[in-house]
Amino acid sequence: MEIDARVEAWASLQLLPRVSARALVALLKSFGGPAQVLAASPAMLAKVVPAEMAAAIARGPDAAMLEQTLAWLREPGHALVAWDDPAYPHALLSIADPPPVLYLHGRSELLNRPALAIVGSRNATMQGRETAEAFAKALSDAGLTVVSGLALGIDAAAHRGGLTGTGASLAVVGTGIDRVYPAANRDLAHRLAAEGGVLSEFALGTPPLPGNFPRRNRLISGLARGVLVVEATLASGSLITARFAADQNRDVFAIPGSIHSPFSKGCHRLIKDGAKLVESAQDVLEELGLGSSAVTPAATAPGVIGGDAARVLTALGYDPAGIDALSTRCGLPADVVSVALVELELAGDIAGLPGGLYQRLR
Amino acid sequence: MEIDARVEAWASLQLLPRVSARALVALLKSFGGPAQVLAASPAMLAKVVPAEMAAAIARGPDAAMLEQTLAWLREPGHALVAWDDPAYPHALLSIADPPPVLYLHGRSELLNRPALAIVGSRNATMQGRETAEAFAKALSDAGLTVVSGLALGIDAAAHRGGLTGTGASLAVVGTGIDRVYPAANRDLAHRLAAEGGVLSEFALGTPPLPGNFPRRNRLISGLARGVLVVEATLASGSLITARFAADQNRDVFAIPGSIHSPFSKGCHRLIKDGAKLVESAQDVLEELGLGSSAVTPAATAPGVIGGDAARVLTALGYDPAGIDALSTRCGLPADVVSVALVELELAGDIAGLPGGLYQRLR
Repeated sequence: MEIDARVEAWASLQLLPRVSARALVALLKSFGGPAQVLAASPAMLAKVVPAEMAAAIARGPDAAMLEQTLAWLREPGHALVAWDDPAYPHALLSIADPPPVLYLHGRSELLNRPALAIVGSRNATMQGRETAEAFAKALSDAGLTVVSGLALGIDAAAHRGGLTGTGASLAVVGTGIDRVYPAANRDLAHRLAAEGGVLSEFALGTPPLPGNFPRRNRLISGLARGVLVVEATLASGSLITARFAADQNRDVFAIPGSIHSPFSKGCHRLIKDGAKLVESAQDVLEELGLGSSAVTPAATAPGVIGGDAARVLTALGYDPAGIDALSTRCGLPADVVSVALVELELAGDIAGLPGGLYQRLR
Repeated sequence: MEIDARVEAWASLQLLPRVSARALVALLKSFGGPAQVLAASPAMLAKVVPAEMAAAIARGPDAAMLEQTLAWLREPGHALVAWDDPAYPHALLSIADPPPVLYLHGRSELLNRPALAIVGSRNATMQGRETAEAFAKALSDAGLTVVSGLALGIDAAAHRGGLTGTGASLAVVGTGIDRVYPAANRDLAHRLAAEGGVLSEFALGTPPLPGNFPRRNRLISGLARGVLVVEATLASGSLITARFAADQNRDVFAIPGSIHSPFSKGCHRLIKDGAKLVESAQDVLEELGLGSSAVTPAATAPGVIGGDAARVLTALGYDPAGIDALSTRCGLPADVVSVALVELELAGDIAGLPGGLYQRLR
């Protein structure tokens, strides 16, 4: 991608390990945008975040790591997608902790297509992998992008099936986007980058750290309308993804199996806890309210808005802002701005961010 | 049993085909008891029921059929249990249409023990029959009487398991109690009569009429606290029993299986409609609010197999598959797979299914 000041600022902020998403929200609220945050003095920053964090921001990122990141971003098909980017997945804006920055290798238009996550055990049975691939192909052909975690077993089969269909497939990885883990999935990762997409919230070069994979799972569920668990032992990480899905108000689907198979026990646990038992891709589509017809990407005809809402939208621009800032910018009372924001959100023009910020979507 | 006037009157009323249970309630209310109903004049009867029914009651039952019934009742272990009998199953009094009279061959004390119905397809898989027997034994050992319908397949396996445990087993048959249907279950019927019980609401000599079996199913569910469906096709009569159970406020339990097995489709349908997915007898006991006293089904020691057979067994997984699919999965010629399947079947590791499919058993 082309690197401008905004992209460089987001990449810099992403490389500052001490700045939490929560602190970043406060900083953006105070300073307006990522470049303004980086340009602020330690004294100004310290009014919003602890002194140690303010000092880290003022120092900026490690120059070599930033250069490495920017070099990666300059390659064709590589991109950084941040909160204030229209390509940022809207679905992630509704989860508890959306990553401020995502690295993407692949097709950015897939980030805002209706998606379904398909996950399961790494050491699944051959039958389980065949089932995952068949469901993924059918759901992809119905227009859903198949999201998974690039693990061996069910994940890899789901990606393959998704790529075969028209909806393609997205992998959310638990390492830096420039690393492929596990190595056995190298060819699949290249295919995903070429025909679908690979996403990471982690800094380039991040190795496979055990703690990062469960955390990454919230994005697999968060990107999707629902999570389908194909085969899972009781220890499978896919149960974590299913739990995230439930917390994020996504549907959870599970495929049953023999009570004598350890690879069905996780799915049975989920069904006992309220997941929907599904026997076919059609079952999933019906539960999602998609019937038998192919899913078409949401028509994004701009809503017809006027008056105060139009003023608020113009004032919002493409940087996140809160009600108070918008009220000042528009010269409108806060309650009028608040009503306008609800209208704009319903019309699909903006989305709420954590910390009372709003983000323009188009 | 000893025949007194009350028993003879109930047997007589049971033989009058035109007298519905509803009419009988009205008659008993008006005249006090079965003997008084039979002693009433047609004019008195016609004040309560239509004239034609009144005439039929005044004429009384066919003398030969009554004598045959009384002769059967005089045999040891044979009994008539009517609404006004303390031995009548209390559980049936809460259903919509409890039969006024039940014929019993066996232990009357079982009629008022906590019971669980276990039902399923007649042509179930070997794995399904083993599962039914194991669950039945464990639930019987936990003190539940296992109720079923004396059909082939799951029913017969459930009776066998129930008889092995301490709770014993009751069969509710769809024919006259003096007939055994199907004939293949003759030995099992004799064992049930000796160690458990066989029940019928139909007149002696009633042949197996298709319409009577679904009707009989309301008693299987009605006698029990819940109905467990082990394996069922979508056409299985056990889905009717499950429906009765739901209407009668009994729990419905279903055992899941492969989405590729036709014998699991009925169970999956039930789970989608709200039945509780269960993986063990313990699950059933917990749902019923009963203790943890159940014995878990005994684990069978895995057979010692090797070479091609081990590869085929691994490739089979826990879903049914045919020779061609297994050949592809293992990369072995079909004839080698075929030999391996025979070895595995002899070792008890797999079972053949209809349609050339094979099913892993452990």
